[in-house]
Amino acid sequence: MDLNKKIKEHIHGKKDEYIRFLQKVIQQPSTTGNELSAQTLVADRLKEKGLDVDIWVPDYNELIESNYFNPLRDNYDGSPNVVGVLKGKENGRSVILNGHIDVVPSGDISKWANDPYSGQVIDGKVYGRGATDMKGGNLATLIALETIIDLGIDLKGDIIYESVIEEETGGAGTLAAIQRGYKADVAIIPEPSEMKIFPQQQGSLWFTVTIKGVSAHGGTRYEGVSAIDKGWIVFQEIMKFEEKRNEPLRRNPLYKDNPIPIPINIGQFNGGYFPSAVAEEATIQGRYGIAPGENIDEAKEKFISMLDHLKTIDSWFESHPATVKWGGIHLPPGGCNLDHPMLEILKQKYMDVEHKEPVIAGSTWGTDGGLLTQAGSIPSIIFGPGTTSMAHFTDEYVELEKLFKTAEIITLAIIDWCEMV
Amino acid sequence: MDLNKKIKEHIHGKKDEYIRFLQKVIQQPSTTGNELSAQTLVADRLKEKGLDVDIWVPDYNELIESNYFNPLRDNYDGSPNVVGVLKGKENGRSVILNGHIDVVPSGDISKWANDPYSGQVIDGKVYGRGATDMKGGNLATLIALETIIDLGIDLKGDIIYESVIEEETGGAGTLAAIQRGYKADVAIIPEPSEMKIFPQQQGSLWFTVTIKGVSAHGGTRYEGVSAIDKGWIVFQEIMKFEEKRNEPLRRNPLYKDNPIPIPINIGQFNGGYFPSAVAEEATIQGRYGIAPGENIDEAKEKFISMLDHLKTIDSWFESHPATVKWGGIHLPPGGCNLDHPMLEILKQKYMDVEHKEPVIAGSTWGTDGGLLTQAGSIPSIIFGPGTTSMAHFTDEYVELEKLFKTAEIITLAIIDWCEMV
Repeated sequence: MDLNKKIKEHIHGKKDEYIRFLQKVIQQPSTTGNELSAQTLVADRLKEKGLDVDIWVPDYNELIESNYFNPLRDNYDGSPNVVGVLKGKENGRSVILNGHIDVVPSGDISKWANDPYSGQVIDGKVYGRGATDMKGGNLATLIALETIIDLGIDLKGDIIYESVIEEETGGAGTLAAIQRGYKADVAIIPEPSEMKIFPQQQGSLWFTVTIKGVSAHGGTRYEGVSAIDKGWIVFQEIMKFEEKRNEPLRRNPLYKDNPIPIPINIGQFNGGYFPSAVAEEATIQGRYGIAPGENIDEAKEKFISMLDHLKTIDSWFESHPATVKWGGIHLPPGGCNLDHPMLEILKQKYMDVEHKEPVIAGSTWGTDGGLLTQAGSIPSIIFGPGTTSMAHFTDEYVELEKLFKTAEIITLAIIDWCEMV
Repeated sequence: MDLNKKIKEHIHGKKDEYIRFLQKVIQQPSTTGNELSAQTLVADRLKEKGLDVDIWVPDYNELIESNYFNPLRDNYDGSPNVVGVLKGKENGRSVILNGHIDVVPSGDISKWANDPYSGQVIDGKVYGRGATDMKGGNLATLIALETIIDLGIDLKGDIIYESVIEEETGGAGTLAAIQRGYKADVAIIPEPSEMKIFPQQQGSLWFTVTIKGVSAHGGTRYEGVSAIDKGWIVFQEIMKFEEKRNEPLRRNPLYKDNPIPIPINIGQFNGGYFPSAVAEEATIQGRYGIAPGENIDEAKEKFISMLDHLKTIDSWFESHPATVKWGGIHLPPGGCNLDHPMLEILKQKYMDVEHKEPVIAGSTWGTDGGLLTQAGSIPSIIFGPGTTSMAHFTDEYVELEKLFKTAEIITLAIIDWCEMV
């Protein structure tokens, strides 16, 4: 039996066990600060497979030394990173399989058809918060690792399996893994790309713009200056800025099917404190997409220039400039060169398994790939089974067929990349 | 010595005592629910002057029977109304002197030059939350009452002095006084009109409009529908509606100097919960000015029609209509006929004291006058010493000279109205 067939059948034979494991992991509500039980499951499984497993709590004092650190909390007690290493037999090309264990909150539970942490399987889908983003993806890479071990395939290069904390809220887990010295020649991150391959990934920065007004009684509102009115001018200017930034990217083949390649999402607008008073202050909070390859500091400067430009639209901003603070998500863009050999291998293995061309695109969101690429100098590629639109959503699920196919493709890709002895 | 001179001199002679009393009342932070200590000061003073004083806690179960009730709390424990009655000697024309004891919160204390409840006197101004709105005004009418008593002036009609709770948050105090049977032929309310006379007063209704969107990840924001985007359409439509409603009022001589006679103030705009998600919901909260004489239910219907019209602007609103809830301030418009004799008397007395024509205008805000007029069938006139723009503001103050002049004018007007025996 040829190796490809062996791999497919091996994975097939263990499907039920894998599904049970995925359910157990989904049943741990591993939101920021609550990652321990899920990480323990992962670490135990890596240990059972005979790997050297490194479990450690990221050190704030070490993290803070990096320019890429975006502190959300000041200690990580109870939030360990887990890394398992399968050493290569020779000095071959190595790969990092990176995935985050943390999940976003379930949101309004009443909107879910079932318990958000049920892990229920219905019609070939496993449901639950994190199923798609990205516990399903993490299982796909784990299966690849385990299949190589189970089938006794000896590789020349290392496989480094990273289950990290805190991607959803800033990237401290991956940054800590980089600082701890985990390096490889390439990284695969099984974020929910729907089996598209993303050799380029946009970054993402959260911003809060503050706009000032002058309060007055609502009955004489003409005596005040509404920060909501002024905020609307800022809102429109941000949208124009988004349009301008996206125009060149629409010619990029990786983003050709994307109406807004690097969106600026204004997710929150809050102005005023009292119905019958003119709003004294408004804030606009949002997510600023950073183009692949764009320098994050330059992107910030451009945003600030845009705000500065407001004074030419409305002289109010001359005396009361809108200001910006960055906070929360702070993910640099990531990726690899378009001629990177792993990209070619992944394409090939995709075609071997799926019998069609893969979609090669740019990601619509930031991931820890940006940190791997920029802080770790590790080219990174996103390729995962999850459904993009399910990430952060109610009734989140992952499709099992895609999960197992992704596992198969990644198994083959790793074997090709790390080379059999 | 003629009576006018006697009155002037009597008030002048007691200024220091009045100022001390005003300071003490301002020093009680009588926000909603905390009116007791200020009311006790007022009640004690009325008792000292030999009045029958009625102190009672408004009854929720009685209030709720009125269509004009706008419940903010479900009991008034510790928030008594105070009414003192100076009975007329004959069955002459009676007057209610109505003023609210409650004050709005001080807001950000750090923005105040001094303690918001200092009651400090600097350059002829008494400072503190409530100085202008309307403890200064309440003192002016109290001085009128006391001057009549002090000078032994016997009048044919009753003077009913009402110190009520909860004007700032809905009008329960005045409504309870009406329900308790306090009636008169006219009411004077010394709200901060800057000594302008307001025979017509707009009403004021608070609203919350809710706008729906569809959430999506910020990186693929084009897959969602932003409630913030849709909220701006609503915002603009409300502003057009305001323009349309104000157009005829600008021809009303009472509002001729007012750029927006009956403003709709959008005081709060809140949309979205997460920077990197498309906003699923937005709310617009504001204050809806009701024209003098306008029926409050019809005004609500017009507002609802305006929202209904949104579907012709954007089909989104066909399937996801913007909805409105009314809550908080709910003050009907009030006033008196423009040929009401008390209006003529007040004008005359103003000229006697000020030696110039008074400004006769329409109020830019709602007051308890609307309840007196509509729920109590008592014509009501606003005339008070406070500075309009200081109401609800930091470093609120009332000018003492205006306060004492207002007191003098009201004393003369009451004597004329209630007639000496």
